[in-house]
Amino acid sequence: MNNVTPKILSGFMELLPEDQILFNTILDTIRNNFESFAYLPLDTPIIEYSSVLLAKAGGETEKQIYRFNKGDNDLSLRFDLTVPLSRYVAMHKEELTFPFKRYQIGKSFRGERPQKGRYREFYQCDIDVIGRSELSVRYDAEIPSIIYNIFKSLNIGKFTIRINNRKILLGYLESLNLKDISSDILRIIDKIDKIGIDKVKEEMNNLSIDKDKQESIISFIKDYTQEEVISYLKSFNINNDMYIEGVNELNTVLEFMKSYNILKEYYKVDLTIVRGLDYYTSTVYETVLDDYLSLGSICSGGRYNDLTALYTNEVLPGVGISIGLTRLFSVLKDNNIISSSRKSVADILLVSIDNNNYDYILSLSNTLRSNNIKTDIYYEDKGMKQKMRYADKLSIPYVIVIGEDEVNSKTVTLKNMILGTQDNLTIEEVLEKFKKR
Amino acid sequence: MNNVTPKILSGFMELLPEDQILFNTILDTIRNNFESFAYLPLDTPIIEYSSVLLAKAGGETEKQIYRFNKGDNDLSLRFDLTVPLSRYVAMHKEELTFPFKRYQIGKSFRGERPQKGRYREFYQCDIDVIGRSELSVRYDAEIPSIIYNIFKSLNIGKFTIRINNRKILLGYLESLNLKDISSDILRIIDKIDKIGIDKVKEEMNNLSIDKDKQESIISFIKDYTQEEVISYLKSFNINNDMYIEGVNELNTVLEFMKSYNILKEYYKVDLTIVRGLDYYTSTVYETVLDDYLSLGSICSGGRYNDLTALYTNEVLPGVGISIGLTRLFSVLKDNNIISSSRKSVADILLVSIDNNNYDYILSLSNTLRSNNIKTDIYYEDKGMKQKMRYADKLSIPYVIVIGEDEVNSKTVTLKNMILGTQDNLTIEEVLEKFKKR
Repeated sequence: MNNVTPKILSGFMELLPEDQILFNTILDTIRNNFESFAYLPLDTPIIEYSSVLLAKAGGETEKQIYRFNKGDNDLSLRFDLTVPLSRYVAMHKEELTFPFKRYQIGKSFRGERPQKGRYREFYQCDIDVIGRSELSVRYDAEIPSIIYNIFKSLNIGKFTIRINNRKILLGYLESLNLKDISSDILRIIDKIDKIGIDKVKEEMNNLSIDKDKQESIISFIKDYTQEEVISYLKSFNINNDMYIEGVNELNTVLEFMKSYNILKEYYKVDLTIVRGLDYYTSTVYETVLDDYLSLGSICSGGRYNDLTALYTNEVLPGVGISIGLTRLFSVLKDNNIISSSRKSVADILLVSIDNNNYDYILSLSNTLRSNNIKTDIYYEDKGMKQKMRYADKLSIPYVIVIGEDEVNSKTVTLKNMILGTQDNLTIEEVLEKFKKR
Repeated sequence: MNNVTPKILSGFMELLPEDQILFNTILDTIRNNFESFAYLPLDTPIIEYSSVLLAKAGGETEKQIYRFNKGDNDLSLRFDLTVPLSRYVAMHKEELTFPFKRYQIGKSFRGERPQKGRYREFYQCDIDVIGRSELSVRYDAEIPSIIYNIFKSLNIGKFTIRINNRKILLGYLESLNLKDISSDILRIIDKIDKIGIDKVKEEMNNLSIDKDKQESIISFIKDYTQEEVISYLKSFNINNDMYIEGVNELNTVLEFMKSYNILKEYYKVDLTIVRGLDYYTSTVYETVLDDYLSLGSICSGGRYNDLTALYTNEVLPGVGISIGLTRLFSVLKDNNIISSSRKSVADILLVSIDNNNYDYILSLSNTLRSNNIKTDIYYEDKGMKQKMRYADKLSIPYVIVIGEDEVNSKTVTLKNMILGTQDNLTIEEVLEKFKKR
């Protein structure tokens, strides 16, 4: 018979069970943290009208979209979770309670050129808070605090959440009479880590910015310490609203993060961070793994003035952040920062010595499962060797063996697969043992 | 400004937060039960090569597929979770441990004509056990036992899992010398609930089956009691292998379900059940809500001889079942069998009386969250009335109010939003109170 070769597309992640268990553990940690901060779940469709989804998109993004016709409809797969949120909030603003805190964990799709660490289908884990006409800057501090809790509990090594408020640099440029070309300058500064200071100066030359101002800008964004950043910023005595707002907002964010007991070495102000120039308006974040800076940001976001501008005239400001989980997982695995340890979700495996006594075994399995012990049963009529091999291959930590003796004495033989020990116990003793774990 | 109208496609489910919380609770119950029986998680791509995904499909299914080109690739969105499982097992059979027990919960897509209760994007919750060349019939009993546990714990009212083994009727037809047209007859009997006995006879007439045999068949599939079904089947003394295997397999399934302590009234043998004629080979299941029979089966599956026939010559038999969760949820909601009760995931809301003392509030929130209490904080500078309205609208059960007094005395004021009472407590007392819940 001619078979079809089973294969998947490149740029799509599919895992073996042990890695899937690990992936799900991470995903659960993220979800639990989101819920612990009282964010509400949302699940939007993967397919939407192109006219709705691509209302704003263009250029590079639009080329990457999976877009197609079905019947009379021009459809696209979502390419992020922000546009659907925006559409959702615009549709349901009369039914939602504001500030509306939502999380969404799901797959997005971008048909970009596949390359190492880039995926065409990828999980995003997003949180956003949306206000109605206003939203306290205090939420700008809550977002990185959640990210801190997640990455700390994932135990992925030292990371740094870099924080900036774009108003500060905009206000500073305004004070240098460079307001007209401020977004061009931000675009240049955004690249400073990649291209270096000399190239930044060269590009500022092209904008006809004089040398003194170039030096002032470079010095402004570089010459401060974390401990004194707010007093440093205030020392410039710049009086335009943009600057004052930016410094005050940043100050609140830093004070709140301190009150949240976030360890100082896990976040820092970085005045060079710009991110998504046509989208974010003040606070911006990115997160790097200190030992893997070349990976770039693993979690980014910020404050935007008007989430739903495309769909409604009402102003709905928001702040949010996104973890690109598929890429992050692949990076963490490839660099051995995380590794799978469990090949099964089972706590225990039940086997029959003589392919018999299933009545006793099944009743026992009911008791174990109702005590939150994940229980597997091996049902094939095989010898003990093969049954134990199943437990071994799946690295199930305990095996209960049942034969006539156990049935008659209403006990079980419990094998500890790690220590290689075994005990004859009552069911109550087994439950007690597992309760202690 | 000209806005784009925010809307989603018909046939796509999108929920408000209170319904999403309810949906997720159901989904978590399903997942927990799957894991409690030690099924391993799997997550396959949503987009696959059409050549792989549609290797077998045809007719109605193929017309419904979301299929499109991207670059040089002919792609399709998965239309179920079984074909991807089959492709996955064929790809990874050397890396998996057999019997391979896997669950997958995810969205599938079928662009069918939208109608009440039908969705184009829908969650499926699948479990399957795959054997390598063989698979004990005992797994055929585990599958409905899991379904029983799930539906019992979901508290969706009285349901019945209908079980059959197709070999029995095939063996019976063989004994009547009707083997050559047995699949035609099964196709007719499959419709008996819809078209009635008279129409079944009419269609058997068309196959030139004589009246006596018609009566025998109808009587065979109808005239038995649940208590004595096995002895009833044995009483025919039919000796072909097909029949004997079918009766023995069904007997094992029933004995195991009894040992699993499944209440008798929740399952029954139904010799008329056929399901997916070109796919299932022996055991088949379907599940109905007793009070809503017209909804048809909410959970179906069965045993198949060779999962991966399209992709490999090795024989991998399996047994599985699928819950169509999106449709089930919509049915349960529409009939008020379930209803959303929580508008927030938060256990508690913290508010400041005077828009101050956030240092104390944030530190308190850390303590609460680290004790598994989901904690929301209201950050806007508003009056108390508006803060309490937020808690009301989200039906958050407790509110902690913090002012100067609380900070000075290191206490909190805890309002019970349901009873309308309030107490001044230490943080330890609050934790104690929540531990008791």
